[in-house]
Amino acid sequence: MPSLQHHPDGRLRHLITLDGLERQEIESLLERAQQLRAVALDGRSALDALRGRTIVNLFFEPSTRTRSSFQLAARRLGAEVLNFDVAHSSSRKGESLLDTFRNLQAMGSDLFVVRVAESGVLDSLAAAANPGVSVVNAGDGRSAHPTQGLLDMLTIRQHKGADFSALTVLLVGDILHSRVARSDLPALRTLGVGQIRVCAPATLLPTDHTLDGCTQIDDFDAALEGVDVVMMLRLQRERMEEGLISSLEDYHRNYGLSPERLRRAKPDAIVTHPGPMNRGVEIDDAVADGPQSVILQQVSNGVAVRMAVMERLLYRAGANYP
Amino acid sequence: MPSLQHHPDGRLRHLITLDGLERQEIESLLERAQQLRAVALDGRSALDALRGRTIVNLFFEPSTRTRSSFQLAARRLGAEVLNFDVAHSSSRKGESLLDTFRNLQAMGSDLFVVRVAESGVLDSLAAAANPGVSVVNAGDGRSAHPTQGLLDMLTIRQHKGADFSALTVLLVGDILHSRVARSDLPALRTLGVGQIRVCAPATLLPTDHTLDGCTQIDDFDAALEGVDVVMMLRLQRERMEEGLISSLEDYHRNYGLSPERLRRAKPDAIVTHPGPMNRGVEIDDAVADGPQSVILQQVSNGVAVRMAVMERLLYRAGANYP
Amino acid sequence: MPSLQHHPDGRLRHLITLDGLERQEIESLLERAQQLRAVALDGRSALDALRGRTIVNLFFEPSTRTRSSFQLAARRLGAEVLNFDVAHSSSRKGESLLDTFRNLQAMGSDLFVVRVAESGVLDSLAAAANPGVSVVNAGDGRSAHPTQGLLDMLTIRQHKGADFSALTVLLVGDILHSRVARSDLPALRTLGVGQIRVCAPATLLPTDHTLDGCTQIDDFDAALEGVDVVMMLRLQRERMEEGLISSLEDYHRNYGLSPERLRRAKPDAIVTHPGPMNRGVEIDDAVADGPQSVILQQVSNGVAVRMAVMERLLYRAGANYP
Repeated sequence: MPSLQHHPDGRLRHLITLDGLERQEIESLLERAQQLRAVALDGRSALDALRGRTIVNLFFEPSTRTRSSFQLAARRLGAEVLNFDVAHSSSRKGESLLDTFRNLQAMGSDLFVVRVAESGVLDSLAAAANPGVSVVNAGDGRSAHPTQGLLDMLTIRQHKGADFSALTVLLVGDILHSRVARSDLPALRTLGVGQIRVCAPATLLPTDHTLDGCTQIDDFDAALEGVDVVMMLRLQRERMEEGLISSLEDYHRNYGLSPERLRRAKPDAIVTHPGPMNRGVEIDDAVADGPQSVILQQVSNGVAVRMAVMERLLYRAGANYP
Repeated sequence: MPSLQHHPDGRLRHLITLDGLERQEIESLLERAQQLRAVALDGRSALDALRGRTIVNLFFEPSTRTRSSFQLAARRLGAEVLNFDVAHSSSRKGESLLDTFRNLQAMGSDLFVVRVAESGVLDSLAAAANPGVSVVNAGDGRSAHPTQGLLDMLTIRQHKGADFSALTVLLVGDILHSRVARSDLPALRTLGVGQIRVCAPATLLPTDHTLDGCTQIDDFDAALEGVDVVMMLRLQRERMEEGLISSLEDYHRNYGLSPERLRRAKPDAIVTHPGPMNRGVEIDDAVADGPQSVILQQVSNGVAVRMAVMERLLYRAGANYP
Repeated sequence: MPSLQHHPDGRLRHLITLDGLERQEIESLLERAQQLRAVALDGRSALDALRGRTIVNLFFEPSTRTRSSFQLAARRLGAEVLNFDVAHSSSRKGESLLDTFRNLQAMGSDLFVVRVAESGVLDSLAAAANPGVSVVNAGDGRSAHPTQGLLDMLTIRQHKGADFSALTVLLVGDILHSRVARSDLPALRTLGVGQIRVCAPATLLPTDHTLDGCTQIDDFDAALEGVDVVMMLRLQRERMEEGLISSLEDYHRNYGLSPERLRRAKPDAIVTHPGPMNRGVEIDDAVADGPQSVILQQVSNGVAVRMAVMERLLYRAGANYP
């Protein structure tokens, strides 16, 4: 379906959001990421597909972890990487974000990986992109973090299979402020998950269409009953200062995932977390490091998913494309 | 002409300033940069000329844009790049700038790209360079920014041809504090520009020999009459705090380039700006993004010019040199 | 001798400390570093040994110099390098150091070069390392900085030969707070140095087993008599604020190395310093830049030693290993 994210012929050009991507497109990216997993985790088998292409990590918010994952993904496809941290850049001298983007574009860059605090900026960057230049959202405000959504889907798929229709998936925590949730939810819906449950303090739940089709369950113990996947979200400590939660202890008592609580889920349920974790707040050590945790597998999948996305976007007619 | 910048046999060794470079040398660099433009802007055609050479971006002042341009230029010549930002370095522990330089040199570096707040430091680094090691000035205090001067000349040349003798070029703004102006002016003179005009508040004009041979015109409208090239300079907001200008609004009224004003220049006049721009202060959006603006072309030319310079400096007898 | 640092078959796996390394192992690393020196200092002869391996510079304390040395060493072995400065990382968001490590490990990293302010952290990272993953200490608190110890030994060896038994070596300065001293001392002992002298204000000398077997001489002039090697240590300016020394002037008067003082040492004595130097405090310019100074040679040796260490640690059965 043509959109801002697509070339006129329907091929994917940018990845700003998972909203509106067709099921076939998401599944094809996941399948390619699965194929790339071995390459993703061992640089000795790195590919040549993007040799000579320049990928700019343009981070207006610091996030060394996400930046590192994109950097390794790019290098394992043979691409050149330029890290551009705006903390050290001329944005401090008052240059607009769009001018910074245009400047780097004028230096011969092929793909921009962008993290930014304000929602909506990615659309304006994509609109300003020259022909042949692609933009990938690495997290924009509360809007979306599509590669996180894809790596979460890949992780679920590896444990539960490609058919999500019989699954019950529970999202727990600060959905209101979470770009991760805003990428997971449309992906889960598009992939046809049986039931999506959400559980959080009322102050941390969005009241717009984000939760359409979700089943809201206030009590965490009840919400966990029989689920296949528990997707924990990070609780920013700022939420306490903002008065959205009364205390971290309180939050942990009501929404912290302990081994005892996890027993209410299916015996083979998996636990995800986008990281960085607040151990002892939203998740206990015994769960984070326990046998049902797939948190480090998510991290590994992140490299593979980002490779699949960058390879897809930089595809050009005539290229040797898998 | 042998100098601190040259080998005894007359070949260029360092690039500290454009002052004193012969016309033939500048033109030869511009011609090589022109040849390299396609390679400069598409990493897929990257060269091997500097394979295995180590280029250190030694930045005592932050400038991610300039650093990125040098980094891409180096990579597209096949060189290894080490970014050394002094904000994170032992200079904070009290080590002298010269010791930092000597240390990095002892690690087997071939070329240093240096930005520094103090004028004159580049000479002492060049004097401390081992045989075979070169230094490129990426901006030192108010003294010089020679690759910016070269990329400005290349941009003019692309629009106006190699013969500058019939051209009228206008520099506008804070020449007093501008290393860009101090590289543009000698280059324009050496290339034989017909007339160089300058226009700025008296508080922002140097009173030394910088403006020798220039025509000073106080009124911006008058200064623009019939010019071929308008070179805008960045206005640092500090100038207001220092009392050198009364207000940004005032400055914009008197020295801001609007589309109406630009109509006084020749119809095919071009507008340059070294970036980052203060839109709405020294330049209006409609000019910055208008058909006469060559600002992004300057950025593209920057990569090509830096490739030409680094290739030239690292030439050694016997090397396969174009 | 198997230990946390060794594989069960006795091969070196991590390099956390020089304490407990056998003489043969240290000497073998020094000999390999000596072989690698030409490659270490000229990228044009870079090796392929670690092609496709990923080396992470994980720096919880800033140290651009040490990081650069490791980066160049890794690149000259053909490895991929990921710089992860924690000033920009999610550790700021409250993630534990161990979680940061595990995350980067899950992205397919092969070797971690770690600098950290707290002693003892390296052991816990080594314990958390996956099979095939190695950890190198690039300085942890006051405990150890083993590659600095090795490069110091290599430098002594280049000037004094492989047999250290007839040498008198003097360490001068803030041994109490020095991880460099805590790596030099065990290495000197293991390599069988004839006499180790130490000289420092009593407030800067450790009272534990660090100085076992050393000869303490309070007067600097007396300590210098007839020594072969003078190893100066950096004096942190904080020591004055902490009241451990009365003033920098005072320190210089009593423990600063001047050319006059140095004449008490053997005529062919060499002077080392780990850098960055406080010129005019612990060392005079005339010594730092004089004929007996081997300080920049130490820096050059640093690249070679780090190559030897990384090559050794990433050796795997079947690899083409020198």
